[in-house]
Amino acid sequence: MDGAAAIGLSTAGKVITCKAAVLWGPEEPFVIQEVQVEPPQRLEVRVKILFTSICHTDLGAWKGENVVTVYPRILGHEAAGVVESVGEGVEDMRAGDHVVPIFHGECGDCAFCRSDKTNMCAVYRVDPSKSVMVGDGGTRFSVADAAGERRPVYHFLNTSTFAEYTVLDSACVVKINPAAPLERMCLLSCGITTGVGAAWNTANVTEGSTVAVFGMGAVGLAAAEGARHRKASRIIGIDVSPVKFDYGRKMGITEFVNPRDHDKPAHEVIQEMTNGGVDYSFECAGNLDVLREAFLSTHDGWGLTVMMGIHPTPRLLPMHPMELYYRRVAASIFGGFKGKSQLPDLVEKCMHGDDRINLDGFITHELPFGEINEAFQLLQQGKSLRCMLRL
Amino acid sequence: MDGAAAIGLSTAGKVITCKAAVLWGPEEPFVIQEVQVEPPQRLEVRVKILFTSICHTDLGAWKGENVVTVYPRILGHEAAGVVESVGEGVEDMRAGDHVVPIFHGECGDCAFCRSDKTNMCAVYRVDPSKSVMVGDGGTRFSVADAAGERRPVYHFLNTSTFAEYTVLDSACVVKINPAAPLERMCLLSCGITTGVGAAWNTANVTEGSTVAVFGMGAVGLAAAEGARHRKASRIIGIDVSPVKFDYGRKMGITEFVNPRDHDKPAHEVIQEMTNGGVDYSFECAGNLDVLREAFLSTHDGWGLTVMMGIHPTPRLLPMHPMELYYRRVAASIFGGFKGKSQLPDLVEKCMHGDDRINLDGFITHELPFGEINEAFQLLQQGKSLRCMLRL
Repeated sequence: MDGAAAIGLSTAGKVITCKAAVLWGPEEPFVIQEVQVEPPQRLEVRVKILFTSICHTDLGAWKGENVVTVYPRILGHEAAGVVESVGEGVEDMRAGDHVVPIFHGECGDCAFCRSDKTNMCAVYRVDPSKSVMVGDGGTRFSVADAAGERRPVYHFLNTSTFAEYTVLDSACVVKINPAAPLERMCLLSCGITTGVGAAWNTANVTEGSTVAVFGMGAVGLAAAEGARHRKASRIIGIDVSPVKFDYGRKMGITEFVNPRDHDKPAHEVIQEMTNGGVDYSFECAGNLDVLREAFLSTHDGWGLTVMMGIHPTPRLLPMHPMELYYRRVAASIFGGFKGKSQLPDLVEKCMHGDDRINLDGFITHELPFGEINEAFQLLQQGKSLRCMLRL
Repeated sequence: MDGAAAIGLSTAGKVITCKAAVLWGPEEPFVIQEVQVEPPQRLEVRVKILFTSICHTDLGAWKGENVVTVYPRILGHEAAGVVESVGEGVEDMRAGDHVVPIFHGECGDCAFCRSDKTNMCAVYRVDPSKSVMVGDGGTRFSVADAAGERRPVYHFLNTSTFAEYTVLDSACVVKINPAAPLERMCLLSCGITTGVGAAWNTANVTEGSTVAVFGMGAVGLAAAEGARHRKASRIIGIDVSPVKFDYGRKMGITEFVNPRDHDKPAHEVIQEMTNGGVDYSFECAGNLDVLREAFLSTHDGWGLTVMMGIHPTPRLLPMHPMELYYRRVAASIFGGFKGKSQLPDLVEKCMHGDDRINLDGFITHELPFGEINEAFQLLQQGKSLRCMLRL
């Protein structure tokens, strides 16, 4: 028996006690503490997390925005690791497999998974309000309280990767090529897949086309990287933060617009730069005024704006209905990828070839897991794209 | 020389005096009177109109809604006829050719016409504010006023078909198979092409899919006919007018919903009828509340709503941005068809085969040209789909 398969031998079927970063209330510092992790139940997988990173959705959840607020809770959804053990009925993975968790799962069997028009699984689609396992409505994490009583620790986004071990529905775990470097593949759990897929699957960027990316965080830069891979001729990055321009220069962005440098709206600047507008724009800012600028930056007739931002606002879409006759808008979740089916191929595209997807540029910081609070500060202050935490 | 080619011989190069229905002010009755029609100039075509019908856009223009209001003016944009003569530089048509005018032209040479993603020609796209010819900014119609002075009569929508002869830019005239019945092909100038194309080109309705059509006028029924041709399994028609149900039964609509018969919103009725919503919905009502019902009637995950209505309202799109992650919305002008390139093939699809597009069902009334005011009343009162006027 090989070493990888041996990973689960000593712990399979048993409760594992390990460290996790537990959130006890909105905007409180994470507490690195011991938690107990139950064995995986039917169609579940227990994964030893080796790397995890932080996305703006984690930041929003930490603040208590737009999600159910149950505590204590283990956040985290970008990660990579190794299967420790699998529950009954899991046939596509076994202990030792290298895996990437996905918050936007794929059961493979529902009407949505059988449709080629959506990646919104009926059961395992992203759901920020979910905090328990699908199978029995319970949690697989627990912690001892001050009186020594065990109390449940809630799950997050089908994943909860801020822990040395986590339990996921097998629909939310993707087996990948074991030769792929896990500290890079971690990025495919969310942000990079979202951006690259928006360019490939939702926009279908074509060779020679022009692109504008509004919001140059990791998702925006990943959309730019997806467009670069498709041989877009011009990729214009728009952000108010000059530090993002430094990152963007290494990532295929060809031109930059800082709206604060101009006395006219960004869309007018871009219209002038491109003789009538770009072919595709990407909104990665979560701001409806930015969405409107992105929309108006595209070329009349065939312009397409792909929205990726989360918009927790009561405002309606900032477009008049008649404007849709001239420009299109669409939204993209998880880049339109069906995770279990299609991520293994994306992994290969990140590993091989002169035009492979550049993952290195996204990792701007690395810290040990115990410094997760510092990593959150880096993201919140706009200093990092992705800070990789090593467990 | 054949008879058809002889049509223009006696009049080519000369001013033609003929009858037209002239509009002298908003909501005034049309006056059937003599007008003078100049010869076509460079890249223009003079057409003898044999049939014309009335669309809601004519009705809106008659009321003075949402268009420049210049008078006297000749409305009309659905028609069929024969080329009388052509101006310098017109090489794809000659006297005697059977033609259909299109309000949404195709120059064939601009960036838009060269793109496969749009049918919005840079120069000849639909423009309700245009009232003169592109070439010299003048009109080709004139009329004698009470003092015997000649005054210009303005054009409408690149077409002005409520006249025995009209002059159009050649980009707005499509040569069709001379074996096609002109009194039916008249319908391809606008409404039927718009609806059928929305189903084929914009929605790309697939075999076995489910469809809801909101607003069962000619455009809505044409979308239904396009969906029937694509072998949709269920086509649900929604309208508040029971007379439309009688028309719809002959046109491939399989089920009907009159919102006035239900104490819940139409989208809830349709969601229940279809176990979660239709695959495609079409908005053909020009009403944003209807657009919202159409949007919510589609299936979560892959639902697509195609908007065809004209919305002269200050209201924004009635959708929250986050709703676009679950359902899509797109707009369709002239069914996404490039008129000069693609209408000849649509003509063939209306002529041949067991599954040919059924044009007969759309013509609910026929009247002589002189009764155009009665024809407008029929449309305004919701009694007709299309009233064919014979010149």
